[in-house]
Amino acid sequence: MDLETAKKDFRDVVEKLHAFQHAMGIMEYDALTTAPSDSAEGRGKSMGILSRYTYDLTAGEKTQQAVAYLKEHLDELDELTAREVTEFDKRNEYTRSIPADEYVRYRMLLNDADAVWHKAKENSDFASFEPLLQEIFDSNKRFATYYKPDEDPYDVLLDRYEKGMNKEMLDKFFSGLREKIVPLIKQIAEKEQIDSDFVNLPYPIDKQKEFSSYLMDVIGIDKTHCIIGETEHPFTTGFNRKDVRITTHYHLNDFTRSMYSVIHEGGHALYELHSGAKYDGTAIAGGSSMSIHESQSRFYENLIGRSREFIGYIFPKLREIFPEQTAGHTAEDFYRAINKSEPSLIRIYADELTYPLHIMVRYEIEKAVMSGKAEVKDLPELWNEKMKEYLGVDVPDDRNGVLQDSHWSGGSIGYFPSYALGSAYGAQMLYHMKKDFDVAADVAKGDISRVTGWLTERIYQHCRMYDPGDLLKMACGEEFDPHYFTDYLTEKYTDLYDL
Amino acid sequence: MDLETAKKDFRDVVEKLHAFQHAMGIMEYDALTTAPSDSAEGRGKSMGILSRYTYDLTAGEKTQQAVAYLKEHLDELDELTAREVTEFDKRNEYTRSIPADEYVRYRMLLNDADAVWHKAKENSDFASFEPLLQEIFDSNKRFATYYKPDEDPYDVLLDRYEKGMNKEMLDKFFSGLREKIVPLIKQIAEKEQIDSDFVNLPYPIDKQKEFSSYLMDVIGIDKTHCIIGETEHPFTTGFNRKDVRITTHYHLNDFTRSMYSVIHEGGHALYELHSGAKYDGTAIAGGSSMSIHESQSRFYENLIGRSREFIGYIFPKLREIFPEQTAGHTAEDFYRAINKSEPSLIRIYADELTYPLHIMVRYEIEKAVMSGKAEVKDLPELWNEKMKEYLGVDVPDDRNGVLQDSHWSGGSIGYFPSYALGSAYGAQMLYHMKKDFDVAADVAKGDISRVTGWLTERIYQHCRMYDPGDLLKMACGEEFDPHYFTDYLTEKYTDLYDL
Repeated sequence: MDLETAKKDFRDVVEKLHAFQHAMGIMEYDALTTAPSDSAEGRGKSMGILSRYTYDLTAGEKTQQAVAYLKEHLDELDELTAREVTEFDKRNEYTRSIPADEYVRYRMLLNDADAVWHKAKENSDFASFEPLLQEIFDSNKRFATYYKPDEDPYDVLLDRYEKGMNKEMLDKFFSGLREKIVPLIKQIAEKEQIDSDFVNLPYPIDKQKEFSSYLMDVIGIDKTHCIIGETEHPFTTGFNRKDVRITTHYHLNDFTRSMYSVIHEGGHALYELHSGAKYDGTAIAGGSSMSIHESQSRFYENLIGRSREFIGYIFPKLREIFPEQTAGHTAEDFYRAINKSEPSLIRIYADELTYPLHIMVRYEIEKAVMSGKAEVKDLPELWNEKMKEYLGVDVPDDRNGVLQDSHWSGGSIGYFPSYALGSAYGAQMLYHMKKDFDVAADVAKGDISRVTGWLTERIYQHCRMYDPGDLLKMACGEEFDPHYFTDYLTEKYTDLYDL
Repeated sequence: MDLETAKKDFRDVVEKLHAFQHAMGIMEYDALTTAPSDSAEGRGKSMGILSRYTYDLTAGEKTQQAVAYLKEHLDELDELTAREVTEFDKRNEYTRSIPADEYVRYRMLLNDADAVWHKAKENSDFASFEPLLQEIFDSNKRFATYYKPDEDPYDVLLDRYEKGMNKEMLDKFFSGLREKIVPLIKQIAEKEQIDSDFVNLPYPIDKQKEFSSYLMDVIGIDKTHCIIGETEHPFTTGFNRKDVRITTHYHLNDFTRSMYSVIHEGGHALYELHSGAKYDGTAIAGGSSMSIHESQSRFYENLIGRSREFIGYIFPKLREIFPEQTAGHTAEDFYRAINKSEPSLIRIYADELTYPLHIMVRYEIEKAVMSGKAEVKDLPELWNEKMKEYLGVDVPDDRNGVLQDSHWSGGSIGYFPSYALGSAYGAQMLYHMKKDFDVAADVAKGDISRVTGWLTERIYQHCRMYDPGDLLKMACGEEFDPHYFTDYLTEKYTDLYDL
């Protein structure tokens, strides 16, 4: 092995993996948006064969030799290639530490779990999902231990989703949030509630589509590189910076759900669309971390999309498209309606203020199960207790409770905190952005270009070149500090509810 | 090498190739129906990498050894595997006979040609496309000679699309058609023309979509396994018998274009959807030949879809969906409108009677160029002469003439005759089907099940298990005989125009 051969072999693997991921990504997207309803069987078979190629490419001997050689010669590599090698290796080290047969069994478990969870959710029947969830938690605990035998397994999982994240940091983060948010929620409960009935009138779907297209324009999405589709659960997927897809789900009697899905997924899309060209097809293409990615979706959704200025700008268009439904209402009415805070059952439809508490419930449950302090069979009860305690709501059934999210059935233990962290990252970015220019004035004019420009320069263009903590520090000139987020919430809701 | 190893290696290659073709097929479908407009670059790169895998799988040494071994031991194989090996080898032998570097150059030529042709068509500028078309014809001639040095190159190409097809047979076929069709066209020209103005009123696209969905139901397409999309040029693609896609293109001022695209592509889809389960994932999955496939699309489009009984059955629904546009018209009016025969410029919108002459023009031009009797640079002139001679129309420009089809820029020389042969195959099948049951009575009731059942039993379920000629003989109990087609046309148009 010599340096040039190792580099060539490595580049070859990265390019091939990218092609497979591209193809499989399109197949998944097609499955969720387009494919005939009963076509999973053949797709599963083909995906299985292609997955095997990606596994062999990743874990194959030739790849391992090249990566090992390059890791020993990092100082002879340019900065980009060195980062690629490190990131590539880190991402795959976890998987490689799992014995092959266990890995295959786990992939099959997740396949089954998805179907079982869907059905269990439909029937509000946690018991049928429980044995699989138990095995998912057990497997994740075991895998974390294979990977880092001397570390706390939950910390290992948290760190995989967000480098540097651990229980100690999150405990502090969430208790800080709770301390500020819970009193606000209590104060709001005593105030007169906002009338938002007009957003629940029927808004015809074809008109909602027209509105979606308008919103994409407002936030500056280049439609020659990003399209919008429809799925049960909205998501974003990007194959490269010239091919990004967002999806939404239209609800006739609550058009704001799709509206904020479009802006949320639009934020993810802007990140992907503004990746640096020099990282095209490299091992560090894509976003820095899940929290950084969520910081962007929630930035556009909430900090921009739920701002008074944004609503002021788009309201005339809303009036134009939906004259009857919005008759007699002002931009301020709409601003208040879409910011109405109310403890509720479902995370994805929660308002900005109560949202972090939904995440906290999940975080505490994961932590308890991973440490052995709670058992999987007791999760529904634990869930309902915590929802009552933090949000004051009574969970009527598991469908609206512990079974609502797909993350656990998909094997994502340790993922949820990313959402809350992302919200907090975003608030910190906004604080610093405001020092550079008058964000509110730009948004009020419907001009998002400086906002996106600021984020592109500091975040988007860098892909995975930096760890999330470093990136945030580069962007804001300081370490992560969640007080910007609680300050933002306090200020906004104090104004809104006249607290 | 032993038999079991060879069989295992062969099966492995077939399954892997299928997975790659599935993935790349979905990427192509996505590109044509869904993908952001400016996303070709990244897709091209990924497709290139995946293509290389399929080339290596097909032409790789291990594959060649397994296939060579199995070919020598055909009598020790079950019937299915023996057929798979023979078909697999035949399909790949042609490609393998081309030197690798020439093959790669040719693929790149076709890539370029597609873009150049699109632009040339847009600008009616044959000259810009001419050098590439020249190279495409030259390459095909050369490749045919590599493959079978002792045979006529055009015969070699014709046989690739339809086993057994050659110039001698086609000359006879087309001169027979011409002899019968041209006098009919002349007689019709002297008759009062059919009034079809009401089909050219604006028919709103969303209502046309509703009508498409209804038509899919009428011809018995299982929508859990087949969906409809929209593209510039309608097509059908099937990944397996549980995942088939058809597309259409809606024209506001001629809803019959989409209507007959849906039924035409629906016929292709029915073929795929009714493949025999035992051929799933084997090397003989799919249709027997292009002509057999076209026989089915044109069977449903014309023999069923343009029949008086079919129109009688669907007309009430058409009235229901488009009450204003169809006001004052009867099913008979509509039957006459969609069967109106009129010499025209564009093949894909030609009526049933003049259609074969469009194909004949293409066939004669290909034959002349392949034999050196015509030069590529003279094709526009030749095209226009033949269109005048056979159809009596003046071609105003190359966009509406020699540049209208994508086949030549895609390298398909020798493909066009499949369309005319398919029409003739279908008429022969209908003749024999009618001996088994009252087809017209079933269609008049909107019950297509016995029609599809007959075709499934004789054609669809067999995939590529038999050569097209053998399959037709098995289905009809006799050799191919084009007189059924000319009889059908004569009877239909004599009645329609009272000749």
